[in-house]
Amino acid sequence: MTIQHILECVQAGSLSIEEAEGLLKDKRFEDLGYAKLDTDRKKRTGFAEVVFCSGKTDEYLLHIYQSIYQENGEVLGTRATEEQYNFLKEHLPQIQYDSNSHIMKIENKEKKRIGKVAICTAGTADIPVAEEAAQTAEFFGTKVHRIYDVGVSGIHRLLAKVEEIQEANCVVAVAGMEGALASVLGGLVRTPVIAVPTSIGYGASFQGLSALLTMLNSCSNGVAVVNIDNGYGAGYLATQMNRLAVSGSGEY
Amino acid sequence: MTIQHILECVQAGSLSIEEAEGLLKDKRFEDLGYAKLDTDRKKRTGFAEVVFCSGKTDEYLLHIYQSIYQENGEVLGTRATEEQYNFLKEHLPQIQYDSNSHIMKIENKEKKRIGKVAICTAGTADIPVAEEAAQTAEFFGTKVHRIYDVGVSGIHRLLAKVEEIQEANCVVAVAGMEGALASVLGGLVRTPVIAVPTSIGYGASFQGLSALLTMLNSCSNGVAVVNIDNGYGAGYLATQMNRLAVSGSGEY
Amino acid sequence: MTIQHILECVQAGSLSIEEAEGLLKDKRFEDLGYAKLDTDRKKRTGFAEVVFCSGKTDEYLLHIYQSIYQENGEVLGTRATEEQYNFLKEHLPQIQYDSNSHIMKIENKEKKRIGKVAICTAGTADIPVAEEAAQTAEFFGTKVHRIYDVGVSGIHRLLAKVEEIQEANCVVAVAGMEGALASVLGGLVRTPVIAVPTSIGYGASFQGLSALLTMLNSCSNGVAVVNIDNGYGAGYLATQMNRLAVSGSGEY
Amino acid sequence: MTIQHILECVQAGSLSIEEAEGLLKDKRFEDLGYAKLDTDRKKRTGFAEVVFCSGKTDEYLLHIYQSIYQENGEVLGTRATEEQYNFLKEHLPQIQYDSNSHIMKIENKEKKRIGKVAICTAGTADIPVAEEAAQTAEFFGTKVHRIYDVGVSGIHRLLAKVEEIQEANCVVAVAGMEGALASVLGGLVRTPVIAVPTSIGYGASFQGLSALLTMLNSCSNGVAVVNIDNGYGAGYLATQMNRLAVSGSGEY
Amino acid sequence: MTIQHILECVQAGSLSIEEAEGLLKDKRFEDLGYAKLDTDRKKRTGFAEVVFCSGKTDEYLLHIYQSIYQENGEVLGTRATEEQYNFLKEHLPQIQYDSNSHIMKIENKEKKRIGKVAICTAGTADIPVAEEAAQTAEFFGTKVHRIYDVGVSGIHRLLAKVEEIQEANCVVAVAGMEGALASVLGGLVRTPVIAVPTSIGYGASFQGLSALLTMLNSCSNGVAVVNIDNGYGAGYLATQMNRLAVSGSGEY
Amino acid sequence: MTIQHILECVQAGSLSIEEAEGLLKDKRFEDLGYAKLDTDRKKRTGFAEVVFCSGKTDEYLLHIYQSIYQENGEVLGTRATEEQYNFLKEHLPQIQYDSNSHIMKIENKEKKRIGKVAICTAGTADIPVAEEAAQTAEFFGTKVHRIYDVGVSGIHRLLAKVEEIQEANCVVAVAGMEGALASVLGGLVRTPVIAVPTSIGYGASFQGLSALLTMLNSCSNGVAVVNIDNGYGAGYLATQMNRLAVSGSGEY
Amino acid sequence: MTIQHILECVQAGSLSIEEAEGLLKDKRFEDLGYAKLDTDRKKRTGFAEVVFCSGKTDEYLLHIYQSIYQENGEVLGTRATEEQYNFLKEHLPQIQYDSNSHIMKIENKEKKRIGKVAICTAGTADIPVAEEAAQTAEFFGTKVHRIYDVGVSGIHRLLAKVEEIQEANCVVAVAGMEGALASVLGGLVRTPVIAVPTSIGYGASFQGLSALLTMLNSCSNGVAVVNIDNGYGAGYLATQMNRLAVSGSGEY
Amino acid sequence: MTIQHILECVQAGSLSIEEAEGLLKDKRFEDLGYAKLDTDRKKRTGFAEVVFCSGKTDEYLLHIYQSIYQENGEVLGTRATEEQYNFLKEHLPQIQYDSNSHIMKIENKEKKRIGKVAICTAGTADIPVAEEAAQTAEFFGTKVHRIYDVGVSGIHRLLAKVEEIQEANCVVAVAGMEGALASVLGGLVRTPVIAVPTSIGYGASFQGLSALLTMLNSCSNGVAVVNIDNGYGAGYLATQMNRLAVSGSGEY
Repeated sequence: MTIQHILECVQAGSLSIEEAEGLLKDKRFEDLGYAKLDTDRKKRTGFAEVVFCSGKTDEYLLHIYQSIYQENGEVLGTRATEEQYNFLKEHLPQIQYDSNSHIMKIENKEKKRIGKVAICTAGTADIPVAEEAAQTAEFFGTKVHRIYDVGVSGIHRLLAKVEEIQEANCVVAVAGMEGALASVLGGLVRTPVIAVPTSIGYGASFQGLSALLTMLNSCSNGVAVVNIDNGYGAGYLATQMNRLAVSGSGEY
Repeated sequence: MTIQHILECVQAGSLSIEEAEGLLKDKRFEDLGYAKLDTDRKKRTGFAEVVFCSGKTDEYLLHIYQSIYQENGEVLGTRATEEQYNFLKEHLPQIQYDSNSHIMKIENKEKKRIGKVAICTAGTADIPVAEEAAQTAEFFGTKVHRIYDVGVSGIHRLLAKVEEIQEANCVVAVAGMEGALASVLGGLVRTPVIAVPTSIGYGASFQGLSALLTMLNSCSNGVAVVNIDNGYGAGYLATQMNRLAVSGSGEY
Repeated sequence: MTIQHILECVQAGSLSIEEAEGLLKDKRFEDLGYAKLDTDRKKRTGFAEVVFCSGKTDEYLLHIYQSIYQENGEVLGTRATEEQYNFLKEHLPQIQYDSNSHIMKIENKEKKRIGKVAICTAGTADIPVAEEAAQTAEFFGTKVHRIYDVGVSGIHRLLAKVEEIQEANCVVAVAGMEGALASVLGGLVRTPVIAVPTSIGYGASFQGLSALLTMLNSCSNGVAVVNIDNGYGAGYLATQMNRLAVSGSGEY
Repeated sequence: MTIQHILECVQAGSLSIEEAEGLLKDKRFEDLGYAKLDTDRKKRTGFAEVVFCSGKTDEYLLHIYQSIYQENGEVLGTRATEEQYNFLKEHLPQIQYDSNSHIMKIENKEKKRIGKVAICTAGTADIPVAEEAAQTAEFFGTKVHRIYDVGVSGIHRLLAKVEEIQEANCVVAVAGMEGALASVLGGLVRTPVIAVPTSIGYGASFQGLSALLTMLNSCSNGVAVVNIDNGYGAGYLATQMNRLAVSGSGEY
Repeated sequence: MTIQHILECVQAGSLSIEEAEGLLKDKRFEDLGYAKLDTDRKKRTGFAEVVFCSGKTDEYLLHIYQSIYQENGEVLGTRATEEQYNFLKEHLPQIQYDSNSHIMKIENKEKKRIGKVAICTAGTADIPVAEEAAQTAEFFGTKVHRIYDVGVSGIHRLLAKVEEIQEANCVVAVAGMEGALASVLGGLVRTPVIAVPTSIGYGASFQGLSALLTMLNSCSNGVAVVNIDNGYGAGYLATQMNRLAVSGSGEY
Repeated sequence: MTIQHILECVQAGSLSIEEAEGLLKDKRFEDLGYAKLDTDRKKRTGFAEVVFCSGKTDEYLLHIYQSIYQENGEVLGTRATEEQYNFLKEHLPQIQYDSNSHIMKIENKEKKRIGKVAICTAGTADIPVAEEAAQTAEFFGTKVHRIYDVGVSGIHRLLAKVEEIQEANCVVAVAGMEGALASVLGGLVRTPVIAVPTSIGYGASFQGLSALLTMLNSCSNGVAVVNIDNGYGAGYLATQMNRLAVSGSGEY
Repeated sequence: MTIQHILECVQAGSLSIEEAEGLLKDKRFEDLGYAKLDTDRKKRTGFAEVVFCSGKTDEYLLHIYQSIYQENGEVLGTRATEEQYNFLKEHLPQIQYDSNSHIMKIENKEKKRIGKVAICTAGTADIPVAEEAAQTAEFFGTKVHRIYDVGVSGIHRLLAKVEEIQEANCVVAVAGMEGALASVLGGLVRTPVIAVPTSIGYGASFQGLSALLTMLNSCSNGVAVVNIDNGYGAGYLATQMNRLAVSGSGEY
Repeated sequence: MTIQHILECVQAGSLSIEEAEGLLKDKRFEDLGYAKLDTDRKKRTGFAEVVFCSGKTDEYLLHIYQSIYQENGEVLGTRATEEQYNFLKEHLPQIQYDSNSHIMKIENKEKKRIGKVAICTAGTADIPVAEEAAQTAEFFGTKVHRIYDVGVSGIHRLLAKVEEIQEANCVVAVAGMEGALASVLGGLVRTPVIAVPTSIGYGASFQGLSALLTMLNSCSNGVAVVNIDNGYGAGYLATQMNRLAVSGSGEY
């Protein structure tokens, strides 16, 4: 309902001033006191709200999952623990948990997946973050092609996969330690590379800082960076770009 | 020419072993000794090579501009100084320089611009970086909508522009100091936000570090970050995304 | 007792030299050997001493609570653990503990609360720090209005509350991750915004450093920053400002 | 004009839908293309817009000074250079420049100053930042008491001034090097201490980082910190607090 | 098999196009889906792949050990835990574990060790890292001379060993805290010093950062630095240098 | 035995070449393979070797305590755990452990303590570090005057003790958080102030970094800094200075 | 005049209340408005005030030099520029300037120098900082023995000087780059080593941070650290220690 | 002359005690007061002393060049300025200066170059650092193969040169920005890779820190790192390794 439309209704008398005022004050959220569920988000951004499970108490988490499930018929959560899953499945038996990506979700099974994004990792230790990206993208309807363990210490492994990667609408590069994968990929494709530094490493990797700086300073073009270990954010961005390619806009 | 095709030619005898070896060794660059011009880049990535002028000697710069101009009929350079421009225009009179964005270019005038990207700044001091982004995107054929000075200290200025911004295929958010603009934009649109931290600020802004961290930690989704003051990189990414939306792929 | 008054008493003979010397040497504390209780503090600053419980042994803590309780009839402690509470309630059965804010206190019930401060959080994870601020302010006699989960990723939630916030004598903005809430608030109110960065986040949030830098570099005016997770300090400052507004001075 | 009022006018037919839509879209700024002057700011925050002169071109600066002067009859700018002053005084002969604080202003002379804030420095090298604070506060109608060079290396100098400081509605503590002044002051007064770290120092002062951390970690309560060298921000906050004390609210 | 040779075979008809294509696409790895074992590595670099055990699940680890063992008849792993060892020895009874260096390996016993490298530590706490270096070098066929606890706080201990150290083909200097050992050694020998900072220390050692910076800034020449606690990398580099000295090239 | 003396003995034939060579090669340590006990240290520096217990295995620790005890009749160790103490007291029943300072020692009871050093703390949480300093100094024969909990948030507590502090041969200032105590002390005494930053604090204290920087940047003169939490080092330096004052040199 | 004495005078009537109040308020400084000269300092600390010339205007500097010269008959300033010297010598012709140490002073020639401190540098580039230390110590009456260019890259140069160094009452170690000199010296002497990191170096020396961390983490005991490039502070501390050794206290 | 030999001479009476004492005190340097030329260095390390010209005064520099030239018949200096060259060539007309590498030298022309090292750069901006490495190695008798501008953004350029690189005795990888070149090279060769981070870049490259961290965290083995921009150090190490390969030891 646009501002113009609300005003027309007021002029036409089909909307009281109080009702219009409420609408105009943007009461587009559900106020639970301790939280304000952003129920307007899907309309505004094309994505329903996702639950960041880390640190939430069991009761809160259950309540939030139930609310979003009721509204959308499905719900996605990230950084969930085994313990949280055990608690929630008592009340939401259809809930699923993946101990690798730490994603906990109830997913509408009949979803169609569109387009294609490629998700690459430098090593096997980067897979949990890559899976968070992949499963997020899949939840939001994106086809994902996984290409793992193609780090630059054995560059022939990556080069053997270049053609597959070039076919995707965008590429996610997940790497810890020195994070050089994103730069090499950036020089090989025409689509954006979403670079995800991981905290894999030790010593002067400083919990992912080294990979983060590498990616920000990439000598290749077309490299966009997200926070350390932020697989979710990468999956979200990849979905946005994939939608652009498939529908010509962010609409879905 | 695919590997398969080269091999068929060898088998068929239409290609000598030396010729095939050369092709297979990927001699897809021009070796000038001190530099190896990546003449294959446009085919591979959809973008011709761009010149990073900062710190290059006048002679080198002239040589590189001439080579790329000869190959592509146009050439884009970033971070050029007034002095470099004065030297080059003696030999390349059609060259243009913009002292705000520090872009120095020879541009094919009949270029058609497609799609739409929105480029927003928090303050007026961020405009030079925004212009580097805007003019890069325009050089590569992207329509740009500039929305400057809409920082969060007066949020109503941004809110008044939201609908215009939502129409773009992607949004570039350029901000220094605390860099909060990207987060607010991320919550308002369905397309990716390319966040460019700038070095505008003083004291604990630490030359852009503060804005960089803000953008990496955005509580909004769909925020992709580039290096501090990297307007060029943002314009490049915006062009990639815009092409995805217009052509359904990175092709152009 | 001013210096002048002490000297007059000495001159008049109503005070011995030893007594006067003691008074002048500022023996305004109780020396327990391992600690020097600042019994003069309430007179000097308008606030009785508050106990920072973290890391104190049970015996010390009990002793300190008993001393302050004896002197003031109430006592406030922050960063207390469940274990400390369990030990102290054996000896001080009237003690109260809030596991959310980690505040442990004995409070004089008949306290009147004055004025009004607004305490806002960006997300639900910031609530424990906000509660430390709120309960500290309330203990010191301040009326608190809580407005939680109004972070900038859904700016309409904040805008719907602006008028309530503008009525307060000062505003506390509690936010982790990128901490942009303080900047947006700073542009909307005429009173000081006390910004509390929290350690909520991961990766490049660097345990609150990102939010801290954001708040220090706020492009809005009137933003005053305290240490990461320092809800107590914010509640203290808010009380000082509220008292200024109510009584025209820091007096209470 | 409240939302309710606009709606009533629409209902009554005294406002067309287009007019109402414009008003509701919050067109509360002047759009100059490269800048959006926040003409609503004084009403919203109690302070007119202040010009951050650093890095602005002469022409822009002149234009901005003229616009604000026209609107408010006075104008305040910070971090101006001698050169900027020389340019502007050609067109605005009544302009004043102070080479110590780098403040450049046109000030309405008949302003009444209210209340009292104390501004203290640790050393003489901190005076330029302190003067930025003092002159900002004075411009906004605050009475300022300057107490300079009372750093903790000779604590008796500070102690001799305590009573004067305690009379102020708030205290600004300006210090570089180790910045201990704020902590000592925090323990001596009942009003907020606004701590301004300065970049005075060398080596491990890291351009003010040392003083900044000191102030954030103050063992005293009631210490609120602003950015390094941000005298302006301190003067603004001090004015807000002073107004709270004088008028019982931020109103002025 | 060189490119030239493959092409000759194609021309001669002794290799089908498909076979040649496969060879040219560099399928020099075993693709297990979640991992791509770099089976070409030994031929390319002179070293078989080494397992970084930290964080790998038991099943993955077992699988990888079995694969490499099958291919090479031996296998080296670093940063293994006691628990991983207990699991693997059930299936690979010939496996050995050293709880000091955290090396877990199956080693071909009849290996001949060549040349000589000296491995020095500053203190006894640096020994685990030194042992990782020493045992890595020994696994790859290098003779190791251990000289432990010769830090600079008692320089006579080091000076008494100088002649032994000078006989080695290269020197590994392992030190935490201030890491000065590498500088002193660099001034005493004609061969490279491989400097390994360790995380031994506390406070301003910042988990090895202090020693790392010391070593990078060594006033002595010939000091090459590896990551903090990277004993493995030092043992690898020492082996490379030792091979250069023994065979006149990196061949082994 | 000086070089000259050794040579005279050789010339005189009272020392064989082998014996002299051994002496000249400075075999002034006991080589245990994994460690080289610096038995020459007491002669060289005036202090016997002290054991840094943290991270040492029980067996090593016992061996080292026994060796040093045998040589010196007493032994001092720092950063010992309760567990280490329980193990060692089985074999060395005369051993003593202080759970506050984490010092574990066997001490010759008839030691005379000389001179005077003052050890001050800002808060009670700094006492463990202060006790490490105090008990180290006492072990090495220094008289210690403890003045705890005199931080700058209640400056009158410190001022009441100034005369006692001025009588000491040097002052140790132990403080966490913002660490301002050292600066205030530096301005009040004529002897060196040994500043010990502690890791007490949270948030932007960054585990003692804030206090460390404060102390390095002290605006007072005569402040010498040691590592974060390095009470032992402060006690050692205090003893050196006290010996200078008592004996006119570092001799003891 | 002690408090007791003042009170007795008041009691005896020989001091009026106003006079006594003034004395008790510690008016032990000269208030010039912009500065408060600490004229009590020499009595309190044994050292007259020293001028930090950097950044002071010519007029201020002249005024301060004249005031201190008048009071003490001599004056010491550090970090003076050639320009400041040229200005001051017009008015104070007896002033002396050393362009190496940047010390500018008027010195009482008949000063007797006592005791002995050794000042060592690692390289020749560290000499300016060492000279600041040496000339400061000499100004305050200390005999200085200079031993320059004895860095650890050629350890034999240092070892040849050990006996000379051991004779000093304390040692100053001045070093940039990796700063290992302090650790080696700490293991060789029985007196305190005052370590001065310098900003000499490049790259990862981070303007002296590397040397600073090295010195703070020294594995040797008895190393006390001052700020980067703080030769003055080292000369001051060395003088304090030398006085302790010569007079048995800090008295002079 | 070994210790044993000196002692035998003393015993035999062919050496006086004073002479022997001098020899044993290691007077292996020339003491110029302000500097101690390490004339023993070539014998000890195989390399004569090299002059770090940066920041040295003209007179000192001339003196040092003359002394070393006299002793060795040639002299190498790094980081020299055009101005220093202009001054020195007046007195040493045979001196040569390269404005690219900033090397200033007098070189013995008949030097034979041995072995082979490959020096690679990522971009053209890295060439000055690479030339410092190359010319240092050449001065010390090493054959250098330069392969410039083969950064990973166009990986085919590097792959086309792999065979040439694999023939070298070691590889120097010079790269700024994200510095990924070293990792890719490490995976392709069997000899050590000496990684030199450069300060080329901007924003989050933090003057070379990004490249430095990348190289320290390389996922490839056999990567040894030197300080940022330390071409000289890399050339020195490359020479050491080349000598190992050619002569089987560091001897030359």
